[in-house]
Amino acid sequence: MGIVLKGGKIVTAVDTYESDIRIEGEKVISIGKDLEKEGDEIISVEGCYLLPGAIDPHTHFDLDTGSTVTADDFCSGTKAAIIGGTTTILDFATQNKGESLKEGLNNWHKKADNKSYCDYGFHMAITDWNEKVCAEMEDMIKEGVPSFKMYMAYKNTLQVDDGSIFSALRKGKEIGALIGFHCENGDVIDTLVKEAKNNGNIHPRYHAITRPAAAEREAISRVIQLAEMADSPVYIVHLSTKDGLESIIDGKKRGIKVYSETCPQYLLLDDSCYESEEGSFNGAKYVMSPPLRKDIDKDALWRGIQNSEIDTIATDHCSFNYKGQKDMGIDDFSKIPNGAPGVEHRLSLLYTNGVVNGKITINDLVALTSTNAAKLFGLFPQKGTIAVGCDADIVVLNPKERWMVSAENQTQRVDYTPYEGFEQEGRIKDVFLRGKQVVRDSKIVTEEPVGKYIPRKSLLEKGE
Amino acid sequence: MGIVLKGGKIVTAVDTYESDIRIEGEKVISIGKDLEKEGDEIISVEGCYLLPGAIDPHTHFDLDTGSTVTADDFCSGTKAAIIGGTTTILDFATQNKGESLKEGLNNWHKKADNKSYCDYGFHMAITDWNEKVCAEMEDMIKEGVPSFKMYMAYKNTLQVDDGSIFSALRKGKEIGALIGFHCENGDVIDTLVKEAKNNGNIHPRYHAITRPAAAEREAISRVIQLAEMADSPVYIVHLSTKDGLESIIDGKKRGIKVYSETCPQYLLLDDSCYESEEGSFNGAKYVMSPPLRKDIDKDALWRGIQNSEIDTIATDHCSFNYKGQKDMGIDDFSKIPNGAPGVEHRLSLLYTNGVVNGKITINDLVALTSTNAAKLFGLFPQKGTIAVGCDADIVVLNPKERWMVSAENQTQRVDYTPYEGFEQEGRIKDVFLRGKQVVRDSKIVTEEPVGKYIPRKSLLEKGE
Amino acid sequence: MGIVLKGGKIVTAVDTYESDIRIEGEKVISIGKDLEKEGDEIISVEGCYLLPGAIDPHTHFDLDTGSTVTADDFCSGTKAAIIGGTTTILDFATQNKGESLKEGLNNWHKKADNKSYCDYGFHMAITDWNEKVCAEMEDMIKEGVPSFKMYMAYKNTLQVDDGSIFSALRKGKEIGALIGFHCENGDVIDTLVKEAKNNGNIHPRYHAITRPAAAEREAISRVIQLAEMADSPVYIVHLSTKDGLESIIDGKKRGIKVYSETCPQYLLLDDSCYESEEGSFNGAKYVMSPPLRKDIDKDALWRGIQNSEIDTIATDHCSFNYKGQKDMGIDDFSKIPNGAPGVEHRLSLLYTNGVVNGKITINDLVALTSTNAAKLFGLFPQKGTIAVGCDADIVVLNPKERWMVSAENQTQRVDYTPYEGFEQEGRIKDVFLRGKQVVRDSKIVTEEPVGKYIPRKSLLEKGE
Amino acid sequence: MGIVLKGGKIVTAVDTYESDIRIEGEKVISIGKDLEKEGDEIISVEGCYLLPGAIDPHTHFDLDTGSTVTADDFCSGTKAAIIGGTTTILDFATQNKGESLKEGLNNWHKKADNKSYCDYGFHMAITDWNEKVCAEMEDMIKEGVPSFKMYMAYKNTLQVDDGSIFSALRKGKEIGALIGFHCENGDVIDTLVKEAKNNGNIHPRYHAITRPAAAEREAISRVIQLAEMADSPVYIVHLSTKDGLESIIDGKKRGIKVYSETCPQYLLLDDSCYESEEGSFNGAKYVMSPPLRKDIDKDALWRGIQNSEIDTIATDHCSFNYKGQKDMGIDDFSKIPNGAPGVEHRLSLLYTNGVVNGKITINDLVALTSTNAAKLFGLFPQKGTIAVGCDADIVVLNPKERWMVSAENQTQRVDYTPYEGFEQEGRIKDVFLRGKQVVRDSKIVTEEPVGKYIPRKSLLEKGE
Repeated sequence: MGIVLKGGKIVTAVDTYESDIRIEGEKVISIGKDLEKEGDEIISVEGCYLLPGAIDPHTHFDLDTGSTVTADDFCSGTKAAIIGGTTTILDFATQNKGESLKEGLNNWHKKADNKSYCDYGFHMAITDWNEKVCAEMEDMIKEGVPSFKMYMAYKNTLQVDDGSIFSALRKGKEIGALIGFHCENGDVIDTLVKEAKNNGNIHPRYHAITRPAAAEREAISRVIQLAEMADSPVYIVHLSTKDGLESIIDGKKRGIKVYSETCPQYLLLDDSCYESEEGSFNGAKYVMSPPLRKDIDKDALWRGIQNSEIDTIATDHCSFNYKGQKDMGIDDFSKIPNGAPGVEHRLSLLYTNGVVNGKITINDLVALTSTNAAKLFGLFPQKGTIAVGCDADIVVLNPKERWMVSAENQTQRVDYTPYEGFEQEGRIKDVFLRGKQVVRDSKIVTEEPVGKYIPRKSLLEKGE
Repeated sequence: MGIVLKGGKIVTAVDTYESDIRIEGEKVISIGKDLEKEGDEIISVEGCYLLPGAIDPHTHFDLDTGSTVTADDFCSGTKAAIIGGTTTILDFATQNKGESLKEGLNNWHKKADNKSYCDYGFHMAITDWNEKVCAEMEDMIKEGVPSFKMYMAYKNTLQVDDGSIFSALRKGKEIGALIGFHCENGDVIDTLVKEAKNNGNIHPRYHAITRPAAAEREAISRVIQLAEMADSPVYIVHLSTKDGLESIIDGKKRGIKVYSETCPQYLLLDDSCYESEEGSFNGAKYVMSPPLRKDIDKDALWRGIQNSEIDTIATDHCSFNYKGQKDMGIDDFSKIPNGAPGVEHRLSLLYTNGVVNGKITINDLVALTSTNAAKLFGLFPQKGTIAVGCDADIVVLNPKERWMVSAENQTQRVDYTPYEGFEQEGRIKDVFLRGKQVVRDSKIVTEEPVGKYIPRKSLLEKGE
Repeated sequence: MGIVLKGGKIVTAVDTYESDIRIEGEKVISIGKDLEKEGDEIISVEGCYLLPGAIDPHTHFDLDTGSTVTADDFCSGTKAAIIGGTTTILDFATQNKGESLKEGLNNWHKKADNKSYCDYGFHMAITDWNEKVCAEMEDMIKEGVPSFKMYMAYKNTLQVDDGSIFSALRKGKEIGALIGFHCENGDVIDTLVKEAKNNGNIHPRYHAITRPAAAEREAISRVIQLAEMADSPVYIVHLSTKDGLESIIDGKKRGIKVYSETCPQYLLLDDSCYESEEGSFNGAKYVMSPPLRKDIDKDALWRGIQNSEIDTIATDHCSFNYKGQKDMGIDDFSKIPNGAPGVEHRLSLLYTNGVVNGKITINDLVALTSTNAAKLFGLFPQKGTIAVGCDADIVVLNPKERWMVSAENQTQRVDYTPYEGFEQEGRIKDVFLRGKQVVRDSKIVTEEPVGKYIPRKSLLEKGE
Repeated sequence: MGIVLKGGKIVTAVDTYESDIRIEGEKVISIGKDLEKEGDEIISVEGCYLLPGAIDPHTHFDLDTGSTVTADDFCSGTKAAIIGGTTTILDFATQNKGESLKEGLNNWHKKADNKSYCDYGFHMAITDWNEKVCAEMEDMIKEGVPSFKMYMAYKNTLQVDDGSIFSALRKGKEIGALIGFHCENGDVIDTLVKEAKNNGNIHPRYHAITRPAAAEREAISRVIQLAEMADSPVYIVHLSTKDGLESIIDGKKRGIKVYSETCPQYLLLDDSCYESEEGSFNGAKYVMSPPLRKDIDKDALWRGIQNSEIDTIATDHCSFNYKGQKDMGIDDFSKIPNGAPGVEHRLSLLYTNGVVNGKITINDLVALTSTNAAKLFGLFPQKGTIAVGCDADIVVLNPKERWMVSAENQTQRVDYTPYEGFEQEGRIKDVFLRGKQVVRDSKIVTEEPVGKYIPRKSLLEKGE
């Protein structure tokens, strides 16, 4: 009974082997040779890789920045996710100043529930620390939210001080929560931004110039030392620099559990994008925080991936239209909304630029885009692998098909992509979400937003 | 048809899940729920873990040291291996001075063929480098021997100079071979040993005193730098020190592919063993090279394991009887044959002292004792995992059974064990080698030496 | 004409040689053999070392902490200084919140002018950063104050944020000022102190427990990175830890000009002092910030001194009586006034425990207690050396005399010394301040407060 | 009586001040204001710096390489030295295989005695280690030779193995000797040179290509680790790379006494010299070992100097004529005699390119070219400073004169200089050797070879 995927090559973070898979209901029931006689429906995946549904642990859908709202909401964003092979996203529910964490979480459930095409969960971003919030962290665990985030940048808005960070890390240690940090020194950036503007330096390139690599390194080395004093693990989001990576390696060497995430943009693009010939303001498309860096940083990040020093590759998807949103900063780089789209193309970009060119194995690809995030964030083994008993979230990748990334053919609801014109080798053909086919022949085949909220386990429940 | 293992918990380097396994002939054919109806023979493994057969990439069976021969030959050694859950060993075929590599390999085939109870392969130890030997390395690849070893210790016997190392690494790079190194500065050790003896310091403790940690660090940092100049990967055998590990981390940070191995003795024992009360010569049991180290080294090695900086845990099994062999050095520590037994107890010791006490996950255990070695040494995916299509080398571990390591109850043919009296939590119940049950209820149930020589793939064939 | 010191051994940061010195007025006029015929007054210093007057770049005299005032004011403090061979001190003038820097400086001039027995200058401590204060830094240069200080500890009182630090460093770079930093993470400490008190942990030992070494390391690594971004030199006051030193070494390796200071207490005492048998509250005598550390830190600091990684040894003299002041915290360690006496004994302690025992040369002693501070803080060559033309600030040290440090025989006006009972080898016999003998046979021989304010040069004037 | 130098600015490693100097016989007798009335001869040095005579601790005069003999012998070499302000050189007496150290030393005395225009001493280069040689090291101390050298490069000729190095370091520790090492991995170089020649790569550029920076780093890190095991200080000669410097810094951090030397060529030239347009073989002029490196190395070496991590700047003067000597390798780079001239221009080059452009102070210049070498090699305080009682070795440098380095105007007896055309700011006007003027107005004014052999003190005698 059930669906049999016939003739594919199953890939996990460790294994690559030819076998059929049989799905019953939402689950993988058996993996073996010649299972076709056991299924009701036989789908040939001959010549294709079967990967665990990808997990994107860093998205921002339906986010109000104060001056505008992201181009993608949960509906468009999760559609883009599934067509790109991402079957689970973790978005950042954010506490507004003065709010309780519960209020923040409720706000995000309203944005996502009944609108999502892939499964989802939330990290809780804390922006206003006090003893009451500290106590509420335990409630979040009960709500299936065992991961948090704090900002070391964005002075006077999201940024929290070292005392808040230290206290939150200690509380996290106690309750089994993992806290991610946006690591840039907001004080330094604030000073540099003001100075640039005073000097009349308003072009998008000043976004990068006022956020130097050293500001990331400083914040990373600081938060790792705070984690050491708190005897707590720590997760570094969107690592972008060589120096930051070296701080992470040093922390691990001292015995601190430091986990880290980078993004395709930091592996594939560099700060020459801010000087695009196409138009003086084109660089605004790449205005994100942290900004794009140098070649030396890209090389170091790839090496960090190869040495297992970086655990996950997320997208930090946070899309704004070039026309109508990014251009709010045409006369002042600091008014350009920060962020860029990416949720749709991650798996394909990394397959083409990582696996095909030999930088990583296809098993590494699975680890980086699915398994490691599942393990760190309490989704494993329900998500993150292909094994008997797990959710049948399966991506069928045809390694032979070639295509090109373009805003014209994308699903995410934004008027550009930073990867415009990138040639792709290998295309996601079919996607199954908990046993239900949601993508067929690279087209979405579900009308309904079938994604579910997935409550997650804490580090304590995982026994870590 | 075939055997069905019913009700166990399958473990790979990534996954842990409940499922049945069906074996046909030598291979795993399917993994799934409720497979009992498909098998001829149903074996209940309820409540047990099913691990991939362990691989020990570092043994010395039937080794003539010049003054004596190891207590274990391939017959007794491989029996001990399978009862301990190790279904494949890689022994060191060694070129004698003046010999060709082919002669060395043939000698080892004679020792092992038709006498082994587990599967086996050989690394080729090069002790006499010249241009002819360089050319012969390619023949070894064809013989299924894509891995080599050189000694930086044992001056005037096995030790080779930096020119040989550098040339071999460059050749290895060209042909896809991985070369392992015994990293201790033999010149320093030779000087210290002579001096100790001149001063009348003959007790076994001087074995350790004359082989300081710094002699390991120096050799490791040197061989990594030679590998960097040769643009070649390198494998460090039996890492024993914190400082050595830090050299490895530094090498990785510079982008060099440095792989490393440690052994249970360096994780579980320390140099206080040389001062045993039981008898003034008892320390001889622990005379091995490198020697046992300090607590600080043990801690660092565990941390290196947790950070994936160490890839494999082997045994360096090289057994000599305390009575009749070790006592050749009763009046001169330098005459004590170097080595200790271990092939039988590795998996159990690491389960008890690593998994049960929470230092590593059971998936890490599989990675360290099986998967990583299989991948590095060209055995994967035939060996090193449990997946459809792989060799049905399966270890059934009962986590509830407790027992104690003792020379009295061991299979390895030697009159002591360094782990005497170690309480064990979890016992290997059954072992299957290519689909054939060779251990049942912790007893060997095969009369015949059913082990086969397994030719291995080079790094180039693996596409690395 | 003038005074001739006859028969001594002159020591500078480089040289040690026998020679006479002739002084005319305030200056050294000639150095040579057989000068006795040229002088009016011949003072025999046979068998003694002649050292440049020591400079203590870190004192707190007449400091109001809010709850009490230091035991020593400029009168008693500078008397203690000269009897101990220190002829110049640099005290910290401190801006109160809301004050201009000029007001702060004036306040300190009132405390010191016409009351000091040794020469003096001021660093300016900035506690309230804004654009006006930024501009006032230039005025300070004109007032002879080219050095500043900021606090990374003392949350809600003295502590400044990273933006202030970064801006001040950039201004400092522009105008040739050197900024010193008290490096401890005040946020972490504040959290730990509150927690300790909540848990009823009120003993003086909790002063040390709530100010961990890691809090110093974090602040040091942070300020060095801020200095790197500001392209500015930086001075670390009262370095107390091995880890902090390693951060400094790393900073220098990256090309940042990092200068550092430690104190005798961090070289000679350790945190066992907080557990004194003498009485449960005796540890209060050692309550200072940063607190006393471990042996491993002491060893590292000595090594840092030997490797020229540490530039100066100051005292951070900040004295409070044990009876009547320290005991304000008998029921709450956080109410113990922070600080300890030291200005009187620095030179003798370091001669005995550094030079006599061979850790440093007597030239190093001069460099660490005089020359380097003179060069860094714009006093050289007027102060900091013995050479023709410099101020005749000369210390005559008799290496043969032995004595013991004790509160009973000290000049500083406080009821204890942390070095009680320390045996001393070598005693300061005579001291000359700008040519005038102020100490003879270890007794003060001036009635008048003859010390003068010494305006200092900026780094730009020094041509650095 | 005696000579009075009137009106100059005296510079030591610490001080810079205006004063007269009076010399009697060979010694400085007094330093002071207005000494003219006390002298027989008054020499005006108004507007000039007076520096301690420079010491070059690394020269090779009259060296037979087997295929040729250096262009400069002790006569021409020491003439060049004094005209360049170097009043003492330390040359390498070299033991030939089979010789005793005493024979080696005698050979060098024959070359130097009665032929030298500046003072001189010898390091003893050991090329043939055995127990007899070990014992002879003590005799060398008695002969005034407390410093030795060993080569880690030049396989099969000068290169010694790790056992010899380790044993020599331990003996050195015992007797107070400092051993310098030529740090390049000779085995690797030998392999690369053979390969290059096999491939027909004979151009001088292959000299550099076959001696990679990594070969220096490896040897430096090795010898530092050997020194650590021997608990001995160590001196690294002619450091040329950033990576080597970092190994030195790491060694110091671990508490090992590592001293190091670099040379003007590694600070001022780079490997683009091997690609000179002037002629395809012109690069041969720069064939020296180690070879010239990259910009990144130069920058790091300057930073190492600024951080006091490098102690001395020597020349490694080893001159061969371009015509008639260098061209022995026109068809084979490995036959080009290794070495270049430099003894004449060191002080001037470093004044112009270090002091004038603000990289170092003039006090640093004195430390690096004179004081530090004097202290390390047992010449201090006789040499290495200007102080009462020291040898009157004084260099008068006129900072206003400009000139240009050229083979045409040089004294060293060789047909080129690597610094041809280098504009110089500041010129050595007069030089005094032990009170005797040997250079006046930049011309040698002594007919006689007035240099003397200077026996030196061991580290034990210095009390280090």
